[in-house]
Amino acid sequence: MTHSKKTSVAPKPWGGRFSEGTAASVEAFTASIHYDARLYRQDIAGSCAHAKMLAKQGLISQAESESIIEGLETIKQEIERGEFVFRPELEDIHMNIEKTLVEKIGPAGEKLHTARSRNDQVALDLRLYLREESGRLIDLLTSLQKAFVTLARKNLSAVMPGYTHLQRAQPVLVSHHMLAYYEMFGRDIDRLNDGLKRINVLPLGAAAMAGTGLPIDRDFVARELGFSAVSANSMDTVADRDFAVEFLSACTLIQLHLSRLSEELVLWASEEFSFIKLADAFCTGSSIMPQKKNPDIPELIRGKTGRVTGNLMALLMILKGLPLTYNRDLQEDKEPIFDTVDTVGSSLAIAAELLGNMEFQREHLLEATSGGYMTATDLADYLVLKNVPFRQAHAIVGRTVAHCIEKGVDLTDLSIAELQQFSESIEEDVFKVLSVSGSVESRVSKGGTSGKAVSARLQEAEVKLGLA
Amino acid sequence: MTHSKKTSVAPKPWGGRFSEGTAASVEAFTASIHYDARLYRQDIAGSCAHAKMLAKQGLISQAESESIIEGLETIKQEIERGEFVFRPELEDIHMNIEKTLVEKIGPAGEKLHTARSRNDQVALDLRLYLREESGRLIDLLTSLQKAFVTLARKNLSAVMPGYTHLQRAQPVLVSHHMLAYYEMFGRDIDRLNDGLKRINVLPLGAAAMAGTGLPIDRDFVARELGFSAVSANSMDTVADRDFAVEFLSACTLIQLHLSRLSEELVLWASEEFSFIKLADAFCTGSSIMPQKKNPDIPELIRGKTGRVTGNLMALLMILKGLPLTYNRDLQEDKEPIFDTVDTVGSSLAIAAELLGNMEFQREHLLEATSGGYMTATDLADYLVLKNVPFRQAHAIVGRTVAHCIEKGVDLTDLSIAELQQFSESIEEDVFKVLSVSGSVESRVSKGGTSGKAVSARLQEAEVKLGLA
Amino acid sequence: MTHSKKTSVAPKPWGGRFSEGTAASVEAFTASIHYDARLYRQDIAGSCAHAKMLAKQGLISQAESESIIEGLETIKQEIERGEFVFRPELEDIHMNIEKTLVEKIGPAGEKLHTARSRNDQVALDLRLYLREESGRLIDLLTSLQKAFVTLARKNLSAVMPGYTHLQRAQPVLVSHHMLAYYEMFGRDIDRLNDGLKRINVLPLGAAAMAGTGLPIDRDFVARELGFSAVSANSMDTVADRDFAVEFLSACTLIQLHLSRLSEELVLWASEEFSFIKLADAFCTGSSIMPQKKNPDIPELIRGKTGRVTGNLMALLMILKGLPLTYNRDLQEDKEPIFDTVDTVGSSLAIAAELLGNMEFQREHLLEATSGGYMTATDLADYLVLKNVPFRQAHAIVGRTVAHCIEKGVDLTDLSIAELQQFSESIEEDVFKVLSVSGSVESRVSKGGTSGKAVSARLQEAEVKLGLA
Amino acid sequence: MTHSKKTSVAPKPWGGRFSEGTAASVEAFTASIHYDARLYRQDIAGSCAHAKMLAKQGLISQAESESIIEGLETIKQEIERGEFVFRPELEDIHMNIEKTLVEKIGPAGEKLHTARSRNDQVALDLRLYLREESGRLIDLLTSLQKAFVTLARKNLSAVMPGYTHLQRAQPVLVSHHMLAYYEMFGRDIDRLNDGLKRINVLPLGAAAMAGTGLPIDRDFVARELGFSAVSANSMDTVADRDFAVEFLSACTLIQLHLSRLSEELVLWASEEFSFIKLADAFCTGSSIMPQKKNPDIPELIRGKTGRVTGNLMALLMILKGLPLTYNRDLQEDKEPIFDTVDTVGSSLAIAAELLGNMEFQREHLLEATSGGYMTATDLADYLVLKNVPFRQAHAIVGRTVAHCIEKGVDLTDLSIAELQQFSESIEEDVFKVLSVSGSVESRVSKGGTSGKAVSARLQEAEVKLGLA
Repeated sequence: MTHSKKTSVAPKPWGGRFSEGTAASVEAFTASIHYDARLYRQDIAGSCAHAKMLAKQGLISQAESESIIEGLETIKQEIERGEFVFRPELEDIHMNIEKTLVEKIGPAGEKLHTARSRNDQVALDLRLYLREESGRLIDLLTSLQKAFVTLARKNLSAVMPGYTHLQRAQPVLVSHHMLAYYEMFGRDIDRLNDGLKRINVLPLGAAAMAGTGLPIDRDFVARELGFSAVSANSMDTVADRDFAVEFLSACTLIQLHLSRLSEELVLWASEEFSFIKLADAFCTGSSIMPQKKNPDIPELIRGKTGRVTGNLMALLMILKGLPLTYNRDLQEDKEPIFDTVDTVGSSLAIAAELLGNMEFQREHLLEATSGGYMTATDLADYLVLKNVPFRQAHAIVGRTVAHCIEKGVDLTDLSIAELQQFSESIEEDVFKVLSVSGSVESRVSKGGTSGKAVSARLQEAEVKLGLA
Repeated sequence: MTHSKKTSVAPKPWGGRFSEGTAASVEAFTASIHYDARLYRQDIAGSCAHAKMLAKQGLISQAESESIIEGLETIKQEIERGEFVFRPELEDIHMNIEKTLVEKIGPAGEKLHTARSRNDQVALDLRLYLREESGRLIDLLTSLQKAFVTLARKNLSAVMPGYTHLQRAQPVLVSHHMLAYYEMFGRDIDRLNDGLKRINVLPLGAAAMAGTGLPIDRDFVARELGFSAVSANSMDTVADRDFAVEFLSACTLIQLHLSRLSEELVLWASEEFSFIKLADAFCTGSSIMPQKKNPDIPELIRGKTGRVTGNLMALLMILKGLPLTYNRDLQEDKEPIFDTVDTVGSSLAIAAELLGNMEFQREHLLEATSGGYMTATDLADYLVLKNVPFRQAHAIVGRTVAHCIEKGVDLTDLSIAELQQFSESIEEDVFKVLSVSGSVESRVSKGGTSGKAVSARLQEAEVKLGLA
Repeated sequence: MTHSKKTSVAPKPWGGRFSEGTAASVEAFTASIHYDARLYRQDIAGSCAHAKMLAKQGLISQAESESIIEGLETIKQEIERGEFVFRPELEDIHMNIEKTLVEKIGPAGEKLHTARSRNDQVALDLRLYLREESGRLIDLLTSLQKAFVTLARKNLSAVMPGYTHLQRAQPVLVSHHMLAYYEMFGRDIDRLNDGLKRINVLPLGAAAMAGTGLPIDRDFVARELGFSAVSANSMDTVADRDFAVEFLSACTLIQLHLSRLSEELVLWASEEFSFIKLADAFCTGSSIMPQKKNPDIPELIRGKTGRVTGNLMALLMILKGLPLTYNRDLQEDKEPIFDTVDTVGSSLAIAAELLGNMEFQREHLLEATSGGYMTATDLADYLVLKNVPFRQAHAIVGRTVAHCIEKGVDLTDLSIAELQQFSESIEEDVFKVLSVSGSVESRVSKGGTSGKAVSARLQEAEVKLGLA
Repeated sequence: MTHSKKTSVAPKPWGGRFSEGTAASVEAFTASIHYDARLYRQDIAGSCAHAKMLAKQGLISQAESESIIEGLETIKQEIERGEFVFRPELEDIHMNIEKTLVEKIGPAGEKLHTARSRNDQVALDLRLYLREESGRLIDLLTSLQKAFVTLARKNLSAVMPGYTHLQRAQPVLVSHHMLAYYEMFGRDIDRLNDGLKRINVLPLGAAAMAGTGLPIDRDFVARELGFSAVSANSMDTVADRDFAVEFLSACTLIQLHLSRLSEELVLWASEEFSFIKLADAFCTGSSIMPQKKNPDIPELIRGKTGRVTGNLMALLMILKGLPLTYNRDLQEDKEPIFDTVDTVGSSLAIAAELLGNMEFQREHLLEATSGGYMTATDLADYLVLKNVPFRQAHAIVGRTVAHCIEKGVDLTDLSIAELQQFSESIEEDVFKVLSVSGSVESRVSKGGTSGKAVSARLQEAEVKLGLA
């Protein structure tokens, strides 16, 4: 047998049965400490609760438990001060901490791993981590909602074109458009909250995969760590990464929502739309074209949808066809999760900041609502109220618009006589419904764009967000 | 301008403004009737509720409403009897039904689309459809859970190896293994139920995207159709497909779970494992090798994980970077949804049937638990109870196992004297913990594999499923 | 054992070893005839070549071979006339054809499957199919290239804004922009051609997975079917779907390219850009808004990028972790392939047609190039030629543009004296480089947008496409 | 306007037009230097060639060119010695190097960016990088092929079961199985080589997107940098990331192949198969179960298929719907590329090493080929040679196997009389074809598993790899 030089560094915690040390290339390939070190707080919190339980159950002494907890606290501080030396040959965060603990406090440290396996330990760390990050993302989503609500309040009665198929469709309030995003990101909060129910379940006690014969108290640990339930099947517990998939799915939807917002911001910042002005501090220039001012932030946010979706795809593929229970493939779950948390978190934060540094160019918005026959639907609805069946009304207005296009005029440019050529049901009161503001204000249906409907929802949102 | 021959068939319901008919190639490319016809029931139910509301609000007469509803009922029956002729030039299910309705009942039919757009109509149909399908999948998941519970009860005390890394790890009860899947698919039910909260929101009334000025009553329609809420923002309403993404995400996890089960069944059915026997009726043979009996069902289920995941990726990509509100890209949402519903539904059904036609080969299972040092952890735990720190205990047992491997014997083959060479803490009572059944029965921790723990959970499951 | 009613229909060709018939639900779940019937031509062509070889090698008689080929020809005609009855209980296209052949010609038909397995047969069919479809897509890509070249010729000297970050950057020729797509789709052709090298390898003769002991002649079959090579390892041959993955990857890039084109068409057709006019025959309207004319075709093409990508992801996931050699999971390869072929093919065809029915609105394009400081880079390059280091030149122009923005004027509105305040190197000849046409014409670098450079490339393209 | 504190650090190279500095949060969000620093060698090589060309064309002096090249050389050495300070406020590797160059050599450095943009510069760097990495991966693939060829030679005549559906199908040579992987990874090499044709095209000279008016010589630069072609359209050039998608697609297939190998290794290392023994140095143990020896390497490689596929998905989604030409979204291309290169490279390397430290357990392999009726196809083929139509032969053997199963015996256990009950065509010579070695050796068809066929291919492989 030939292979690269073997490491002689630390004897492995699982090395008793092995006749050869681990190849250095293998250590490099399998080590996760360079990324899972990020879980140190969760790992230590979990170990402290575990140690307390071991003492309570008489598996270790009270003194040993205290010594362990004190040692772990010291390690945590060392890590936070940047003084802790992570050793790749110790593979992961769990072994780095446990080994250092033993070096610090002696044999008591060797008792910490009693009735525990890395299989349930890493599941614990990940659940604690995602519980925390779900909460942080919910806070960021709430801040983003506030940014939209603030913009809505600031532009309550400003009018802009509403689009379908990127064609001007009907005039809407800028505030209505902003609140569309308020609703969208609100659903993201609900989804994260639903996911938390499945995250917040204690895995510790499943041990390697079969549970343990040592007299542990899982409910005690759950209470200590704030879990609302204890997992019900040890094999399922160590094989399960559903909660992570669900979290990544929810994050993908958040980033997708941000991509839709970003697309709109990029469009609106273009010369052609000129609907918004982004602060200079939130744009960058070109290395060659001196006149450029680019909407880099929304472009990057939109681009980052790729990586978040890619991370979801990665985890799905990892899990495909894995037999129970723990397989080492699962180690690959962490990097996509961490990258997603970073990407979605920073995108949400910068998006909220960007919205706070953006101005709607109201005169351009208003201008864009004139022309384009955007009140054609109002004319059809007007006819409906005059008892013309909708389909006929639609056809009448279609012909009227075709006539206007040919003549190069707007609907409001037609005289009452001209309008009546298309339908006798049209009367003088028609001009009210053909105006942009009349159109907007008419849409009083629940969820519609009239000032009345929008104000009502805006106020609800402000109350919910503590802004009112 | 040159293009393929134009259709002169039906004038389009939106054709008033157009000077040219639609190209035949365009009709073929844009038509969706060949797949969205599947939504006919939902479309008709929605239209009936809409018509009732229009009458209640005085937008149409009571007689017109009744005529519409009667006409729609007739159309539904024609579709179900296979007598309805779907016309591609009418694009989609909505227009096929509306046009036929007008042909059947005259001008009253032309009033049905009052205060409505296809944009909110298709959202309605899709939500009604996914509400129904979520319920159906929940039923299928429940049936699958029953199959696992039945197998667990039937094999309550049979022992098999539990695996990590596909290496024999610790002996477990077959029933424990079956209940791991009970838990897994139980979470799928919970996820579908959570998603239903976001599906079950009425979109109708958003109209094209701005709401409507006609005096509609959305709450009435919501009550008629059993929706628990009314959407809050018309622009968001027609742009939103979150509920579909969430449904596909939940389905992807279901199929992933099935892929893990399938992998195990394929392994277990192999000559090497021989843990199960699948009924001949659930296997197929080879066109060339006369002796083959292949586990095609689990292989196909596992393979189908690809298409379900692909469908999720498809919808995510469709939504990326779409500006508000409705864009035609959204038409592409339906086929991935339908295919997912079919795939996951049929996979769940056949999996349950397969489990009901499968026998565990207990003698092979038992045989597989002997040897392999699967009670090594028990020996370590034994030492822990004799006050040996866990890490030392682990190392002691590691050395003991290495010794056994070298000698080619099992742990139970060692004499007490030999065992004591590795640790003085080992005493005569050690042999109890080295036996497979002793090992299994010792794991009484919550969620563990002992008969006691498993029975408790099994009974809970049976009560929940109405099997007890 | 309980299961759904068993089928008693046809005894299976592999049924000798089985004591039970196949469950009806299993037949329904495993059958592929509803989609693989599409491979009938390939299957028959392969079988004819196989039968010829069997006769040549003396494994069947010449008369038997002729009878087989004649029978297959009849079956092919029946299928094409729609008279062939496909039987789901015969599972797939291979068995449907073989069984019917036996019914038609008797025992000779039972000899066709000699030295062959469905494992190598389906690989053969798929390779023949993808060879043909690669060719068809190459033709469609060529037609699309022609559409771009035609538009380039038609708009050779028309000017439009070139964008980076969707901000106006530098003026370019419309023809240059069109030729960008010519290059892009040209690469797609190259990729399909490269893939063909790996598709065009004969798998037949691998049999089930180990080769055969019967004296076959694989080279003869390869020649008969136009394959350029014979596969080198029987196990690899039946396990391999690389060629399909590679084909789907190439198709995904094609559809991605179409999505970029579609995005531009949607933008250009918007009121805000107004760069193009799509023929009425290639747009559709709204069921509610009578004035709408929507760019449905590019929207749908863009949306279909989701399904093509999803199909690629599906096949990748199917293959992940599959042990050698054939596993039933592989049956799931066909539907993503068929759907991709249909989607990409129809998207390419309609895109070419759409381009032929689209007009650039030159006056709007020209208007859009004025203002926006798009010749700022030219001013910087002008300074470079006056020996100002580029970075300083860039900064000078940046300040000049900032000055113009503040004053609300264009670069060309500044007097020479004003310009000289920013750099003494500016002289009277500057105004030439500040004009849009001067800017465009200056870019004579290879691949640049000057009329000269574009004409040269256009002519090359026309020659290559047979248009010159 | 409110936002986080602004940076006052370095004035941006594009800052002339801006009235505000960049927000610190924006700098943090948009910076890429933490990952694109990896491209320093490519960036410097490209700049050196560019500087040479500028001098040759008289755009800068010879002395300036030499000073630039010298300066860049110094910077390269500083980076390689770890002495270079990367500044995030300078955004990316391009600006970090250029700015430092200016600080080192003064105004000459400010001339380097003449006739160049970051848009074509980053495309250049990426193409140089992928050209190099394609070569490196090809080398690693070749090493892996050598490992398979070595194993094939070492186990030339050892027999093992060949599987379909993970059911024993036909006996094959271990060497044949190893060579299946030789072929598979050989196709990966071909694909990378094909991709290189599209990578190896010079983008420099496209400038921002329209080309340049300065008199550059792109062919000279291409020759300097070893490019085989110059890109033909400036707009396409800066918008194009096809070559990266194609590279990621090829890498995904490589990792998929590794996942299939890994699955087999995990299976083979299981107690149930016991086909191979992995060196202790290439396995790890359990933190709780002292007896465990886990095949972590193949498990991790298999798991890493997720991230590679996820990276491909990420880039595909980034590109979807991007209008021409450069958009900032494209910045997101680098991390998936880098991660893929690292993952695939390290997986290939460790896989080759692992294969070199693995032993086939021949006695277990042989044992597994007895029983299981794996020579049933041979019996059918035997009957074919006795002129029994294949379908009848298949059925006869099917019944024979069913009989054996019922009696619990093997085919070879039947007497000639018993055999003849199933077909009168069976004679004494049948026993030769029923033996495992007879079966293997009979398969002399091209690509088959007979020693003769395998030896021939093995020798070809050894010659190609320089091992013979």
